Amino acid sequence: MPKLSETEKDARRRRVLDGARRCFARHGYEGATVVRLEREIGLSRGAIFNWFPSKQELFLALAAEDNERLHTLFAEGGFDALLAAVTEHEPDWLAVYLEFGRRLKADAGLRERWITIAPPEARERSREWIEQGQAAGELRSDVSADEIGKFLGVVIDGIVSQRAFGFDPPDGELVLRFVRDAIRPGERDRGQAPESSSA
Amino acid sequence: MPKLSETEKDARRRRVLDGARRCFARHGYEGATVVRLEREIGLSRGAIFNWFPSKQELFLALAAEDNERLHTLFAEGGFDALLAAVTEHEPDWLAVYLEFGRRLKADAGLRERWITIAPPEARERSREWIEQGQAAGELRSDVSADEIGKFLGVVIDGIVSQRAFGFDPPDGELVLRFVRDAIRPGERDRGQAPESSSA
Repeated sequence: MPKLSETEKDARRRRVLDGARRCFARHGYEGATVVRLEREIGLSRGAIFNWFPSKQELFLALAAEDNERLHTLFAEGGFDALLAAVTEHEPDWLAVYLEFGRRLKADAGLRERWITIAPPEARERSREWIEQGQAAGELRSDVSADEIGKFLGVVIDGIVSQRAFGFDPPDGELVLRFVRDAIRPGERDRGQAPESSSA
Repeated sequence: MPKLSETEKDARRRRVLDGARRCFARHGYEGATVVRLEREIGLSRGAIFNWFPSKQELFLALAAEDNERLHTLFAEGGFDALLAAVTEHEPDWLAVYLEFGRRLKADAGLRERWITIAPPEARERSREWIEQGQAAGELRSDVSADEIGKFLGVVIDGIVSQRAFGFDPPDGELVLRFVRDAIRPGERDRGQAPESSSA
């Protein structure tokens, strides 16, 4: 095999990732056989697995890309931007996550890797976005930044799973009306929770 | 086969459902073969499928039971009770839902049935719980009861999918702190949303 320049290497790696994403979305995780991966990517198995040691590593690389992108969106545009992106993802692609979930469930080591799949810098930026919001009095500070992040993660995972199953989740604007009230500062930040006012 | 009394019929049906639930939780949806169902239930395939025409119908009957129970809990104890129940469900059982999700995604007719899988009375009671909360000024009324229900569904599905994947979702008390603020009445119910106060 002739030596590839760095640019050619990047282009080759990109081609493998893009083709694999299409293949997973079309056939599912289990259905994305080596033959189908070869056909969709347009490279031999030798060339494909030169870049990623296994189908699992190929999927993890795609999930890491998604995750980095979502963290960046969140850090730059807040929860609104994150929610919009999740709503635009192809349901077929999201369904691959559900399928992969069986492996995660069965393999604690894989779960450990999964939790930290986004690069540390991306996760750090998300965390900073929340902390800055708290410092500026725009987000509640009776809970930690980490706790706010976990709650937002539950909401995102709920929307992702509904879409992956083929259901229509409530639209983003409606979800935002609830989430904004859940995370904004309130009387509670000054001490005692108030009695509910009136309807 | 000798005729069974109504009580015996109920007991037999219960035995089939309980055994099938254990079998699905242990082996997954695909892994719950007819042979394994026979072994776990302790009845022949003829006796099992006398009660439910297929494995799919058997799972749907179990999901309908779960759904009715959750609606009843919600109508009687509110979101707190619903959340507690979802947190207690066995992750192995929840994972069967994820696996079944592939079928839902592929089959619009099945999705239609799935949406209405809980009996109408159970769903009606949940809806009434929200409407009564709104009428009493305990829940926000700038959105419909149906919209509140959908948001709570997203949160529940997020927790269910995290648990089904083998992750620890944030604990119930933390989730409730966010959800209570998301659905309680506020200044917004009297018109304009306020500026955020202070941190």
